[in-house]
Amino acid sequence: MASNNEPLLRDDRFFDPDPGVRKIARELYQSTKDLPIVSPHGHVEARLLADDEPFPEPTTLLVKPDHYLLRMLFSQGVPIERLGVATRDGTPAESDPRKAWQLFADHWKLFRGTPTAAWLGYELYQVFGVRTKLSGDTAQKIYDEIAEKLASPEFRPRALFERFKVEVLATTDAATDPLEHHQKIRDSGWKGRVIPTFRPDALLQIGAPGWPAELEKLAALAGGPIENFPAFVAALQDRRAFFKSLGAVATDHDAPDPFTARLAETEAEQLFHMARRGRAGPAEQRRFQAGLLMEMARMSAADGLVMQLHAGALRDHDRLLFDRFGPAIGGDIPIAVEFTRNLRALLNAYGNDPAFRLIVFTLDESTYSRELAPLAGVYPAMRLGPAWWFHDSMEGMRRYRERTTETAGIYNTAGFNDDTRGFCSIPARHDLSRRMDANWLAGLVARHVIDKDEAREMAKALAYELVKEAYRL
Amino acid sequence: MASNNEPLLRDDRFFDPDPGVRKIARELYQSTKDLPIVSPHGHVEARLLADDEPFPEPTTLLVKPDHYLLRMLFSQGVPIERLGVATRDGTPAESDPRKAWQLFADHWKLFRGTPTAAWLGYELYQVFGVRTKLSGDTAQKIYDEIAEKLASPEFRPRALFERFKVEVLATTDAATDPLEHHQKIRDSGWKGRVIPTFRPDALLQIGAPGWPAELEKLAALAGGPIENFPAFVAALQDRRAFFKSLGAVATDHDAPDPFTARLAETEAEQLFHMARRGRAGPAEQRRFQAGLLMEMARMSAADGLVMQLHAGALRDHDRLLFDRFGPAIGGDIPIAVEFTRNLRALLNAYGNDPAFRLIVFTLDESTYSRELAPLAGVYPAMRLGPAWWFHDSMEGMRRYRERTTETAGIYNTAGFNDDTRGFCSIPARHDLSRRMDANWLAGLVARHVIDKDEAREMAKALAYELVKEAYRL
Amino acid sequence: MASNNEPLLRDDRFFDPDPGVRKIARELYQSTKDLPIVSPHGHVEARLLADDEPFPEPTTLLVKPDHYLLRMLFSQGVPIERLGVATRDGTPAESDPRKAWQLFADHWKLFRGTPTAAWLGYELYQVFGVRTKLSGDTAQKIYDEIAEKLASPEFRPRALFERFKVEVLATTDAATDPLEHHQKIRDSGWKGRVIPTFRPDALLQIGAPGWPAELEKLAALAGGPIENFPAFVAALQDRRAFFKSLGAVATDHDAPDPFTARLAETEAEQLFHMARRGRAGPAEQRRFQAGLLMEMARMSAADGLVMQLHAGALRDHDRLLFDRFGPAIGGDIPIAVEFTRNLRALLNAYGNDPAFRLIVFTLDESTYSRELAPLAGVYPAMRLGPAWWFHDSMEGMRRYRERTTETAGIYNTAGFNDDTRGFCSIPARHDLSRRMDANWLAGLVARHVIDKDEAREMAKALAYELVKEAYRL
Repeated sequence: MASNNEPLLRDDRFFDPDPGVRKIARELYQSTKDLPIVSPHGHVEARLLADDEPFPEPTTLLVKPDHYLLRMLFSQGVPIERLGVATRDGTPAESDPRKAWQLFADHWKLFRGTPTAAWLGYELYQVFGVRTKLSGDTAQKIYDEIAEKLASPEFRPRALFERFKVEVLATTDAATDPLEHHQKIRDSGWKGRVIPTFRPDALLQIGAPGWPAELEKLAALAGGPIENFPAFVAALQDRRAFFKSLGAVATDHDAPDPFTARLAETEAEQLFHMARRGRAGPAEQRRFQAGLLMEMARMSAADGLVMQLHAGALRDHDRLLFDRFGPAIGGDIPIAVEFTRNLRALLNAYGNDPAFRLIVFTLDESTYSRELAPLAGVYPAMRLGPAWWFHDSMEGMRRYRERTTETAGIYNTAGFNDDTRGFCSIPARHDLSRRMDANWLAGLVARHVIDKDEAREMAKALAYELVKEAYRL
Repeated sequence: MASNNEPLLRDDRFFDPDPGVRKIARELYQSTKDLPIVSPHGHVEARLLADDEPFPEPTTLLVKPDHYLLRMLFSQGVPIERLGVATRDGTPAESDPRKAWQLFADHWKLFRGTPTAAWLGYELYQVFGVRTKLSGDTAQKIYDEIAEKLASPEFRPRALFERFKVEVLATTDAATDPLEHHQKIRDSGWKGRVIPTFRPDALLQIGAPGWPAELEKLAALAGGPIENFPAFVAALQDRRAFFKSLGAVATDHDAPDPFTARLAETEAEQLFHMARRGRAGPAEQRRFQAGLLMEMARMSAADGLVMQLHAGALRDHDRLLFDRFGPAIGGDIPIAVEFTRNLRALLNAYGNDPAFRLIVFTLDESTYSRELAPLAGVYPAMRLGPAWWFHDSMEGMRRYRERTTETAGIYNTAGFNDDTRGFCSIPARHDLSRRMDANWLAGLVARHVIDKDEAREMAKALAYELVKEAYRL
Repeated sequence: MASNNEPLLRDDRFFDPDPGVRKIARELYQSTKDLPIVSPHGHVEARLLADDEPFPEPTTLLVKPDHYLLRMLFSQGVPIERLGVATRDGTPAESDPRKAWQLFADHWKLFRGTPTAAWLGYELYQVFGVRTKLSGDTAQKIYDEIAEKLASPEFRPRALFERFKVEVLATTDAATDPLEHHQKIRDSGWKGRVIPTFRPDALLQIGAPGWPAELEKLAALAGGPIENFPAFVAALQDRRAFFKSLGAVATDHDAPDPFTARLAETEAEQLFHMARRGRAGPAEQRRFQAGLLMEMARMSAADGLVMQLHAGALRDHDRLLFDRFGPAIGGDIPIAVEFTRNLRALLNAYGNDPAFRLIVFTLDESTYSRELAPLAGVYPAMRLGPAWWFHDSMEGMRRYRERTTETAGIYNTAGFNDDTRGFCSIPARHDLSRRMDANWLAGLVARHVIDKDEAREMAKALAYELVKEAYRL
């Protein structure tokens, strides 16, 4: 790694420049860097590990599934279809992955100072052993290097899973997903622990055009038509049990606005019937979701599945991107979120119950110190999810710790999760998180807020123990 | 204090790790650490200093009144009644203070990185001379040490008041409080300055079930029934005069939402009559409060009492805690607050009047730089209260200075106040504040934003002078 | 500059105290400090450079036009008229500029820790060569020194323009401004590039009492009455062309609330006619502005003028200041702003069009990471304006970079602009910005987030290249 130039990946990266702090950060990081990876929330496809086929080539692995990367390139005038991403509106997409890779590399400077550069820097250097700096000039050479690696057995998904020391990997799956890949992994005899997560969003969005079809899918799995609200709730409960039977420990819920409210039976029934007749609008959906979140909390307290709530994303803001590529391509934009009033019904009903566990994520950082830390710092059932999405970054993690710890402590937080679609980015993201936490703790030690023994215990908790405790793993 | 181990309380605690900054911080702190304590806003009971009885034992002194501590323990599954706090719903409470103390000490790690650890660390070491690290193992030994101290005359309230160098201590008192303890202190000949603060919140909350009873209390003090709005306002004015006669320099107002508006006489009268008939709801209360805040400002400009406004807490969020323990136990959660439009009526009416003084506190830090610093940086009557409640902490204070100074300067801020119920935490909180301000100023010196002479003057202003100027002490 | 005392203006001012970071910051700053100044948005009067008369005296140059300074002094009880600012309500103003200067200097300590101190410190030392520290005692001596300088030819506006290395200076001008001073500069043969900016706010505010008069002015310039909406839009388009003919590259729009919406022709027509009859209120104005912002974006995509949008100021909050001095005296207070939903219509219509360019500024810092960086990080047409107004400061700039870079990168930002009315503050503000950016980059280098070569390129981009690219200069 040494040369007369700076190494590409510095041992002390992301640590405070102050020599005293850096020394402590390094020690703390040394104590956590080799701990197993627990990944309780992510978007890797189970199929990958079920089939264990070689990854096709670098662009498909590293560029096309990375919405951080696609949105940044698009923002600077690079059409996403030219990166090889398939379109659904007939726009022709680049078919040569080498050309797409070149285009990406030509714009590499855009990522200076972003977590994308940090993650990809790790992946290239640490996962693929690339020792050349990425640029337009070196793009093809690096493509070749990675492609060669991908052809070897050591770079098959299961081999990497083991090399990354993944102790458990949770996927995210629609409530109506048959989970055949999870079943296949179980049946294969392979020891890797890959578990599903129950995400029923599509079934709660009664104002969406696709809702009736979702209900049909649910009915098919339930073995017969679902004609009233209690039957609907019962079918959801059955699916939770099915997910649990395949290892699930959690559910996941997305809400632009985390409104919760106990619905009267008649109202729930009425909303359900409006939905079935295709007559539910945004107002009906909001009420329905509010009531269903209460039902989900009730079931969580009963079946023990941890409830995750991700709030604050307005989806598919850019219609052009949505029409051309579908959802999840980078057109999601955060909005201001209110938790104190919105979660009150749910927390008063279940938040004091030790059998219930709620983990909350936000894209609105102004709620960290104002609402979320105070709530997690009082309700026994609540934990704070880590800095999420746009805030899963060096500064984002720093702000998260600085704004939540003094009110909620670290023991009301849920460790780290990578939330990634990019399989090879898993170790990169956990490494970044462990570095940032080590560095934050080092700053506390250097300022005599905590002592070193405390810091060591806290570092281990943040990297490994809290996530297991929070997700009951 | 020195040993071959780290001392428990480090001289340089909370200072920047950079040796250059730390050196300056230490110098600045040396110049302020022994200044008298001016405590213009807090919740110590006057009775304590009126009676000057010994404190009963450690748990009653340090655990039971500390809502920061209770909420954190509760959030991690410790029932508050097991800490010895009396219930009002019949749930049995722990009656042995040693068991409660042990339970608290067993969970001490929860407070790592929080101001509670900083404050209690100071109290144990500096106030009680404890040289053992708190833990489950050492809990009983430390309990004994403190209990022994509490039995000695040096640990009576008045002796501590003098040892802490408290120059003035303001309590917070309902508008209908007879202030007999304040009278008793005055009559005792003791020289300690303990003054009341006029807090009429209960009389403004016309939508609360208890309002008619509050009005009765006011009427009893006024010497006759209060049957119309002008009589109500006059009775409030009389109470202000009474508070002032016992040394009060300020009023205090809590508002989830700091809405102010000039009411027409007919509207005020109408709202008052609705309230008397028990028919005022939240909307009426909001209007009434808005109008009464205007009346209070008008009176302040006339009688010189400084008006304090604390905004942004939604009270008693957790119904279980409220039902079991009553208010102020830790179930208050902040909400987003708007000041620019809400305070406009009040500031336009009185904000340019040098006879008026308004000190504003917030739990919504996003308003520091957006609304509060710009408002305090233009209206002559307005000052910013210090970082409040959840933000009365190391990082909270840092954010406060960084986000308010560049727009409002330090001379539009009101120094520090401890806002505490815990008598022994008074010096701990002022010490933390003086350290954080010294450290912040040291950073400005090291970056050549100010020079050392300026920093020394500013340090004294922040620790001692501004609070006296702001509260007209 | 050296003496046995600290120099007044330290070479390393505003840089991090850590020696490692400081060394890199110094190097980066050396590479940008002498780059030409590009000032694409400001409030210097073109008349100044058209006439090139000597500045009258120090108070008129440095005190009276500086609303930062006036508001701070006012907030501490100094009547603004005593600083020599003319009133419009008959209140007598101080007529002796020396007395006004003395009053300002007597209160100089108020600015400790504020950007005003940083800017004026630079102006006194660097622009005017003053080597005495400002205070009440030195006020008259310094006044004399500056006054003497102002009398010399080297201190005429054009000479300073050249000495400051201003490559281009944009003014801000009402849509109905005849731009005769810009014409005069062009005709004079002087090579300095001074360009107008098209600001049609007054024509969009159909609820304002002055709107009919504005429409008259527009009609006079259009050469005939404007009787319907299409004629109104056409007249605006003609003015844009006129501005462009005199060098304009941008338009500027102020909106408390950046709501955008496509109006049906009939609605636009109807609103226009209500306005002409003086019957448009706030609701009508909001719709009209929303629609007109869409028209402006459409025209920008066609004529290439960059669209600037400044959101979040509630103007003239303090009625007393407004009545006495008119607008822009310091009574503007920020409010919370929503961009994600408000800009959706405009961004969906034009935000994916490379011919369009939108630069957005905010006074609500909570939107940096929540809304603005995510929006600029996906829409090709959008760039983030620099930290604005109250946030054009040391900490304000730091927060801006820390909260926007990780999501939007630096290449979706628009460099720096000074937004100043104070001609001599132009180099002071650019210097501060270059220092803060150099220091921020140095921190990234020291933490190995970027390497030095990258930092050097980024420093140049931030100081010089991005602003030219963003404004198409």
